[in-house]
Amino acid sequence: MTTAAAVHAKAIALGKLCVRMTARAGSGHPSSGLSLAHLVTQLMYREMRYDPADPWDAAADRLVLSEGHAVPIVYAALADLGAAVGRTRAEARPLTPADVDGLRDLPSLLDGHPNPAEGVPFFDAATGSLGQGLSVAAGLAAGARLDNSPRRVFCIIGDGESREGQVWEALDFIVDHKLSAVCAIFNANGQGQTSYVSAQQSAERLAAKLAAFGWKTVTIDGHDPDAIAGALAEMKAGLPPLAIVARTVKGWGVDELQKGNWHGKPLSDDHVAAADADLDRQAEKLAKGASELARPPAAGKCGKRVERRDPREVKWPSFSEAMRAGGFEKALAKNELGTRKAYGAALRTAGDLLPQVVVLDGDVSNSTFSELFAKAHADRFFECKIAEQNMVSVAAGLSAAGFVPFVNTFSKFVARAYDQIEMANISRANLKIVGSHSGISLAADGPSQMSLLDVAYFHSLASVRGDDRQSPQCWLYQPADAVAAYHCTRLLTIHGGMCYMRTHRPDVPLLYPHDAVFEPRGFNVLAQGDDLAIISGGYMVHVARQAVEMLARQGRRAALVDVYCLPTDAVRLADTLRKTGRRALVVEDNYGGGLGAAVSAIAAAHGDLRVANLFCQRMPKSARTPEEILDYCGVGARQIADQALALLRRPA
Amino acid sequence: MTTAAAVHAKAIALGKLCVRMTARAGSGHPSSGLSLAHLVTQLMYREMRYDPADPWDAAADRLVLSEGHAVPIVYAALADLGAAVGRTRAEARPLTPADVDGLRDLPSLLDGHPNPAEGVPFFDAATGSLGQGLSVAAGLAAGARLDNSPRRVFCIIGDGESREGQVWEALDFIVDHKLSAVCAIFNANGQGQTSYVSAQQSAERLAAKLAAFGWKTVTIDGHDPDAIAGALAEMKAGLPPLAIVARTVKGWGVDELQKGNWHGKPLSDDHVAAADADLDRQAEKLAKGASELARPPAAGKCGKRVERRDPREVKWPSFSEAMRAGGFEKALAKNELGTRKAYGAALRTAGDLLPQVVVLDGDVSNSTFSELFAKAHADRFFECKIAEQNMVSVAAGLSAAGFVPFVNTFSKFVARAYDQIEMANISRANLKIVGSHSGISLAADGPSQMSLLDVAYFHSLASVRGDDRQSPQCWLYQPADAVAAYHCTRLLTIHGGMCYMRTHRPDVPLLYPHDAVFEPRGFNVLAQGDDLAIISGGYMVHVARQAVEMLARQGRRAALVDVYCLPTDAVRLADTLRKTGRRALVVEDNYGGGLGAAVSAIAAAHGDLRVANLFCQRMPKSARTPEEILDYCGVGARQIADQALALLRRPA
Repeated sequence: MTTAAAVHAKAIALGKLCVRMTARAGSGHPSSGLSLAHLVTQLMYREMRYDPADPWDAAADRLVLSEGHAVPIVYAALADLGAAVGRTRAEARPLTPADVDGLRDLPSLLDGHPNPAEGVPFFDAATGSLGQGLSVAAGLAAGARLDNSPRRVFCIIGDGESREGQVWEALDFIVDHKLSAVCAIFNANGQGQTSYVSAQQSAERLAAKLAAFGWKTVTIDGHDPDAIAGALAEMKAGLPPLAIVARTVKGWGVDELQKGNWHGKPLSDDHVAAADADLDRQAEKLAKGASELARPPAAGKCGKRVERRDPREVKWPSFSEAMRAGGFEKALAKNELGTRKAYGAALRTAGDLLPQVVVLDGDVSNSTFSELFAKAHADRFFECKIAEQNMVSVAAGLSAAGFVPFVNTFSKFVARAYDQIEMANISRANLKIVGSHSGISLAADGPSQMSLLDVAYFHSLASVRGDDRQSPQCWLYQPADAVAAYHCTRLLTIHGGMCYMRTHRPDVPLLYPHDAVFEPRGFNVLAQGDDLAIISGGYMVHVARQAVEMLARQGRRAALVDVYCLPTDAVRLADTLRKTGRRALVVEDNYGGGLGAAVSAIAAAHGDLRVANLFCQRMPKSARTPEEILDYCGVGARQIADQALALLRRPA
Repeated sequence: MTTAAAVHAKAIALGKLCVRMTARAGSGHPSSGLSLAHLVTQLMYREMRYDPADPWDAAADRLVLSEGHAVPIVYAALADLGAAVGRTRAEARPLTPADVDGLRDLPSLLDGHPNPAEGVPFFDAATGSLGQGLSVAAGLAAGARLDNSPRRVFCIIGDGESREGQVWEALDFIVDHKLSAVCAIFNANGQGQTSYVSAQQSAERLAAKLAAFGWKTVTIDGHDPDAIAGALAEMKAGLPPLAIVARTVKGWGVDELQKGNWHGKPLSDDHVAAADADLDRQAEKLAKGASELARPPAAGKCGKRVERRDPREVKWPSFSEAMRAGGFEKALAKNELGTRKAYGAALRTAGDLLPQVVVLDGDVSNSTFSELFAKAHADRFFECKIAEQNMVSVAAGLSAAGFVPFVNTFSKFVARAYDQIEMANISRANLKIVGSHSGISLAADGPSQMSLLDVAYFHSLASVRGDDRQSPQCWLYQPADAVAAYHCTRLLTIHGGMCYMRTHRPDVPLLYPHDAVFEPRGFNVLAQGDDLAIISGGYMVHVARQAVEMLARQGRRAALVDVYCLPTDAVRLADTLRKTGRRALVVEDNYGGGLGAAVSAIAAAHGDLRVANLFCQRMPKSARTPEEILDYCGVGARQIADQALALLRRPA
């Protein structure tokens, strides 16, 4: 009873701060924050075992606020607790109640939604695009288990938010992997942005669904401190994991916020005083004579943690050694191997060398060849089944826990999780995304399995400078052969941030010597020629090579340029093109806006280089061979050669 | 009993064809097809009310094969029934058993996965990227209800596939909208691609989940014709909708296919004969003396259908009339209105004029302003709640039913459904996607709510030519003011295919006279200048205008070009740039690869035009005003002017 009064008192004090800061900011979601006042207080002051001054402690419990718009109530608690904030540990300082008035202001680290990279390390991942938090929580718990950490992870999900299918993917994943260190808390306030939530998301329906998904489910009054404490006490090791459905009131304690639709609207300054008075009346009723809450309980200790090795320090075996270890002895003898296969062997090697590498796949590990890693390092392989959104967000959680996750599926199905990838990018997650079966060379399966927009998408992501202003926010690799795939995989482990690599289905001959050098922003000139350059990446380098040979038979000297990395070295590429008649033809097995756009932008910035683009000219369909579908889409070798000739015929 | 034997006989015959065609193709999924042999037979010969020769009948029942890789068994049935195939009704001809040997071949219309656009109108949407079919089925049923059609829609979903969260979004949507004309059939064969499905997707668990989602659920033996018929007989009008969990055997009837992992692998030619013998033994046991199955029952009749008007024939009210009807009288007087608001009024007008326009929103209709349509045309408005993937695929279903769906949410959250958009694009769906709160001008909410890659993504989609080889597969519009938003919305209704329009949060002054002309591939020169062109679209046109004014004060004459449509008229744009010192600066409120990439490609193709790109230079964060965040990201008016001056200083 005394404790309950103290929780009420604190929840009310935080609620006041939440109302005030959103009013000062002129935007934000005070009503959502108030619905969580008691849950957040109980969790952050009484349940979570952590030191607010040390958000980097691997043993500490964590809170993932999946409904990110409710963040002001958490900021209020962080300010009250003097939690450490700052972009780096060296810059850390305690957050103060005065800080919160800067909510959503440019100089403030208190973003409109949880954003660890701006300086709130209490959070592990940016949230605000809904439905992703529970997957992040699962990734954190999976990482904690690898690290022998006593960490528990609490995740708060909105009832309206639980309409997002990804939530149900995460619930399955957590059961599959027995991650009972995750507690899922559903905030059932019954209101969404435009109206009430659907009856499909009512507290009763949610509880029934959660039980059917194999979770122990407790429904409580989310403003009753004792009920919250009682429910949280049900959390146990082992299945089933615990889900709490908490009935709450949007705008709890403030009369004005319970009238009409206040979603996402701050109170005006004159309403703030009334809100304070309303909350004072609640305090009078619920928190009379309450003592101050104690600091949260201390974190436990990790057992033996996974060693994090410096990826720049480890020595990789030779290409042929790694391929042999992957079982590709025969392919090596034939000098022909698919990039996806060489990647599989490289991934396994990365796992041998770097204990922090973990791998996720979506039921296609025998296609992506991530199975080579799975066989060698089963404890660090996460089968995510057919649920790509959850897979990417779980990987973001593993990254936040200090692991280096490689995410694998067909590159077409990577698109299923582009929003999750953007959120991981905001979090500066150290994600390595590898998409197989890229472009149209997949042929027989048809367009539903072909990635056609991935190069444009990741090229756009790669266009933005990272926080160091030197490297990009994302690297994009397109290896043309097995050697390139092997060495580029090593580069992925070295880059400290998001990378995307694109592999292809067909087996292809080796283009490079085993010890060829690949580097960030790199490209290679595979054949010299001064009439024009044919520029490509990935599988298309082989097709472009045929075109170069056709042109040679017609007496035309085309250079063959393999741009395996984006962003690429613009100065060196422009120099290269000055030696190829200032002309280039870029050829791609995907839609426009990718490599051709990158090269065109470099050329257009100079104004004295001419670039023609040849990419997939129409919607592909099924065909039995890559050659057939390349021709059909206008990017076959003959068509490339013809385009090159047309470019050469144009006046300089 | 006799009927059961006949169903067995037919299922076995179709199974043989399925095995043969995949063997001939050298790829495909015979084992998945065989697991569906009885379900497909029962549905396509006995349950579905339709004429195989008339797949265009709006009253006919439909089958959505969500697990698209199992399509050979459906092709077998279509060939046996002589179903109409062909890209257009005029070209239609019956499919023959000989046709199926062309499976996955370039000249064949039998793609590796269901692909109506290649000439199989039995299907309504391309499937194969998993988890999307039930949403399409819901869209078809929603369309059927509007058309007073007796249509029922059967949807087959794999058990492993049901891991995709979108399936659970669709189940909620169907209950919300009482679309009990949909029957969801789960094919529980217990096997995925790499291994067995998770216990979370077992038949028992699936049944429990479906019941918890509010569905009447029947679990049956999916190879027992009577059991299938009995389960389907449970389908009734009104809630709850019917779900069937059918236990099946992957590779049913063929010994070889039940050994080890045969997912996605065809039998070799010598195994085909053994498979035939195995299936003959099954026939001996189950189908002795069976008679031939009758043709499927005839379709019912529609009541009064929704009128489809020719969008080119309707006369739109003036801009000011439409804005007044939308409640924006005051804004009109002030000459200032946000593009999202003008779009809302335009959408309402489209609804007034075109009965086939339907609107979907994801619980943000008071932000996207699609609520103006909802208030006027409640019967054609679909609240999809917070589940964007389902929303897009439902819209694809509505498009297949002959409606013109406008899909609305924040443009950031459109990214949640990029894979669904690609699938809809393969289906040539007539989707109008309108994303609001685009780019960084959203400011206070922070990056989790800002679309930064959407222009690059849709520009890539817009790079591909449509089937007519003239228009692109997708149009991208970026209106800069309310007038542009109004007139561009009209263009969206006229284009017969996918369009994306990007609106912004802030209110902005009107740039255009009310009767300004906007057209496909259009751009407008808003200010003349011969020193250089500043090119932009959407909100950034206003910022660029300020930069042009700054430059004018320094004696520099910059043209201001509003490229509101991509693809844009390349010839005219190049001509324009020849009059602006052959120099252009493209400015954007998003990451690279968008408008700047498009203009750079045009310039680089000429080789005598210089283009500099200025886009969002770093990850945005929260800020209280658009100006602050524009400056922070390096694209404020002053920064644009400085870049223009730098470009002018460079030698020509």
